[in-house]
Amino acid sequence: MSEATIRVLDHGLVRLVDVMGSDAAIVQAARVSYGEGTKTVREDARLIDYLVRNQHTTPLEMVVFKFHVRAPLFVARQWLRHRMASVNEVSGRYSVLQDVFYVPEPGRIQGQDTVNRQGSGEALPPEVAEEAIAVLAMQNAEAYSAYESLLEAGVARELARLALPLSLYTEWYWRIDLHNLLRFIGLRIDAHAQQEIQVYAQALLDLITPHVPAAVAAWEEHVRGGVRLSRTEALALREAMPQGLPDSLETKLKAVR
Amino acid sequence: MSEATIRVLDHGLVRLVDVMGSDAAIVQAARVSYGEGTKTVREDARLIDYLVRNQHTTPLEMVVFKFHVRAPLFVARQWLRHRMASVNEVSGRYSVLQDVFYVPEPGRIQGQDTVNRQGSGEALPPEVAEEAIAVLAMQNAEAYSAYESLLEAGVARELARLALPLSLYTEWYWRIDLHNLLRFIGLRIDAHAQQEIQVYAQALLDLITPHVPAAVAAWEEHVRGGVRLSRTEALALREAMPQGLPDSLETKLKAVR
Amino acid sequence: MSEATIRVLDHGLVRLVDVMGSDAAIVQAARVSYGEGTKTVREDARLIDYLVRNQHTTPLEMVVFKFHVRAPLFVARQWLRHRMASVNEVSGRYSVLQDVFYVPEPGRIQGQDTVNRQGSGEALPPEVAEEAIAVLAMQNAEAYSAYESLLEAGVARELARLALPLSLYTEWYWRIDLHNLLRFIGLRIDAHAQQEIQVYAQALLDLITPHVPAAVAAWEEHVRGGVRLSRTEALALREAMPQGLPDSLETKLKAVR
Amino acid sequence: MSEATIRVLDHGLVRLVDVMGSDAAIVQAARVSYGEGTKTVREDARLIDYLVRNQHTTPLEMVVFKFHVRAPLFVARQWLRHRMASVNEVSGRYSVLQDVFYVPEPGRIQGQDTVNRQGSGEALPPEVAEEAIAVLAMQNAEAYSAYESLLEAGVARELARLALPLSLYTEWYWRIDLHNLLRFIGLRIDAHAQQEIQVYAQALLDLITPHVPAAVAAWEEHVRGGVRLSRTEALALREAMPQGLPDSLETKLKAVR
Repeated sequence: MSEATIRVLDHGLVRLVDVMGSDAAIVQAARVSYGEGTKTVREDARLIDYLVRNQHTTPLEMVVFKFHVRAPLFVARQWLRHRMASVNEVSGRYSVLQDVFYVPEPGRIQGQDTVNRQGSGEALPPEVAEEAIAVLAMQNAEAYSAYESLLEAGVARELARLALPLSLYTEWYWRIDLHNLLRFIGLRIDAHAQQEIQVYAQALLDLITPHVPAAVAAWEEHVRGGVRLSRTEALALREAMPQGLPDSLETKLKAVR
Repeated sequence: MSEATIRVLDHGLVRLVDVMGSDAAIVQAARVSYGEGTKTVREDARLIDYLVRNQHTTPLEMVVFKFHVRAPLFVARQWLRHRMASVNEVSGRYSVLQDVFYVPEPGRIQGQDTVNRQGSGEALPPEVAEEAIAVLAMQNAEAYSAYESLLEAGVARELARLALPLSLYTEWYWRIDLHNLLRFIGLRIDAHAQQEIQVYAQALLDLITPHVPAAVAAWEEHVRGGVRLSRTEALALREAMPQGLPDSLETKLKAVR
Repeated sequence: MSEATIRVLDHGLVRLVDVMGSDAAIVQAARVSYGEGTKTVREDARLIDYLVRNQHTTPLEMVVFKFHVRAPLFVARQWLRHRMASVNEVSGRYSVLQDVFYVPEPGRIQGQDTVNRQGSGEALPPEVAEEAIAVLAMQNAEAYSAYESLLEAGVARELARLALPLSLYTEWYWRIDLHNLLRFIGLRIDAHAQQEIQVYAQALLDLITPHVPAAVAAWEEHVRGGVRLSRTEALALREAMPQGLPDSLETKLKAVR
Repeated sequence: MSEATIRVLDHGLVRLVDVMGSDAAIVQAARVSYGEGTKTVREDARLIDYLVRNQHTTPLEMVVFKFHVRAPLFVARQWLRHRMASVNEVSGRYSVLQDVFYVPEPGRIQGQDTVNRQGSGEALPPEVAEEAIAVLAMQNAEAYSAYESLLEAGVARELARLALPLSLYTEWYWRIDLHNLLRFIGLRIDAHAQQEIQVYAQALLDLITPHVPAAVAAWEEHVRGGVRLSRTEALALREAMPQGLPDSLETKLKAVR
């Protein structure tokens, strides 16, 4: 396994297998738009910042990454809903699936969030957490034992796997361009995403940053770290406009119709 | 539930919720290519046959269907790998998932195919089948019981669901255009696809046929019922050319380089 | 021609040919995510506002529009760069193209913008504008005359058309879902887009608004009328935080890392 | 300019700028599907042949190419209709477009095909060809002269370009995966495609073959060189079945329903 591998959860991983392009490829593609008409030299990072700030994202599609991912099925289900990527996944019809399951750590056994209807809230008391982990681990063991007994009875793999739970690990190759990858990361690194996919999104971000540092910096500044105001909020802010704000902000607010 | 619903497997269904377009929409879009230059009236079905025969498939993208589907998770996983469609699926983070599982009928308990590495072969003896069904049903019950006990202990839904198996039913809305739908059906109605998704593909085909009869007929003739020869096969056939074949076939063979 | 047609430029048009779905279809698809777990009734417009505010855009993909568009080639070139749509366009290989060209009105003859390197600036003096229009009109006439003479000499249509300029009108059918259409409109109605495509974007918006009023209102509030702050701007604003801003804005600013 | 450049038409080119992957990447991705269950070593080319023969094309998406292309506008219009690719093109809003036009050679001045409504037929007599070329060249010169006079009068570039014809050269970066590239090549290298795009398709094929020789060989055998029979043709052939055909062909014909 190459060094460009990050281990995630108890048995997961993200490995950066191949890369095409870098910040320079973004700049090269962007500059084709200016053709012969562009005479001045612009600094690459400034151009990339401009592109990301203004959502001119097609040059980012010129950079492509290929990853090898191992993750539990419930994470894979969220992950593979992103359509702008290419995927080759292990098939449970071809292969006997391995006995590898995700079991959360005690501190991850959290209650239902009371505000965010889809998320996790406070950690549950240690004894509840231990009990929950025991239930999940038992369920994994029994499910795999059922799977094995079905295979031993001669049942086809494609049917035997029906017994296996969403905690089972699967793996796949994943090819995606930088524009779509940053969208994926933005959605999945968000605090509202399920924690188990957040850590994968962070691993992806860590793996690509050395290859496209300017693009990641621009994305951190304008997308991830940015704030989207509604028209109502923008108009209220314009009304109350305090002193000493960046000119760029005043310009944006003045432009609200 | 409207009449345009077909029940599939033990608890599954495909419901045709909405349609935009018909054979006429295909013809309308195709004819825009001919603009004012086209003077003669062509018969719609013949034009559609021509389009499908020659893989001029963009006019088929003008027809759009929306379905409501309920299917087991292992079917959903295969289904949602098709990227050229829009999906909204029940979320196990928001909602408590219902106690509905797919359990195969005894005749479906088949052994691993000895030729097709990914498929099912002969039905297993009745006593083996009964035992396998008992194992699967037991597994479903225990998994759901574990799920309920976790929820009762206050564990967040997004974690409790890890115990649930691939036999669990899920549901989604699915919007897809006719071109991509016929590709989906072609791949999933094939004898090499898993039987449980074949029956869904058949249901989709049955639901759309009344809306686009000419397109389906052309697809049956040229795609589903057609045969693809390799160059080697085509050259061998040209060599051995028997009498009395359709002219169209001779023309095709003569064109092989 | 149906009433749902808007005339654009001198000879262009946008016609809404067919629609699948409405605000209700968005809500229906969004609610499948909540399954049985959702008990309270939410108001449709509020749910749509929530979806758009939080960029949960897949339910918007359930609504589909089909348009008939007639526009000059230079507009078509920009338009058809949007990939998430289906297109059938008149072919100059099949058909003799008609003698219909876009000629700007005098007030539209503007100079190069001195700030925006890609845009138009001040209107030019009337006599310059008249002269420019004369040049363009002459060029159209000579080009079409060359085209006709080539056709008369027997040259194939696919070659003769090489003489025709970017001001020539073409037409196509265009099928797109609401999510991607709003992205298209947002980019092309922007003041930095070429004016000739802005008016088409406005026509598209006017045509769909009666069909999805809540979705359009949410998009106006959160996307078109909204403002995106960079992290730097957001932090400066947080520092200078004036009194009396909406709570929602304070919450957003507090969340900036 | 690197050696991996092929000159096309009078002023066009295709340059292979970057590549990610090779035949080995296809095999690597395909084998993930077999996971631990695959024990025997298969020969790479045989596996790739199997994948292409059976239309298991997702592993081909793991290989990505980036090209720099210079082509006339009427070729660009056909080219950029393929949606499964990323594009950055020179902008006539930003830059003054250069005085480079495609002028066909005399032998290419052909008449309208009498059978194929969209194509070219017999070469026209030399004197007609010379005259047609003179008309086209004159038109290019006058159009560019009009363009320059408009720019000199101060008209914005985005408006001045309206005078320019479809023979003008443009250029772009193009990023596409192998699966979609082979589809593009298959459609555009076909004898029914316009000759000017056929030569680009041939250049693309020549440029990628050294990188993915097994994939190209499989595509030549099963796709480009293959023949698609309709059900009617297949049934007629089955009826007349001559001796000595490849077993694989008999198997295919027997499977027709």
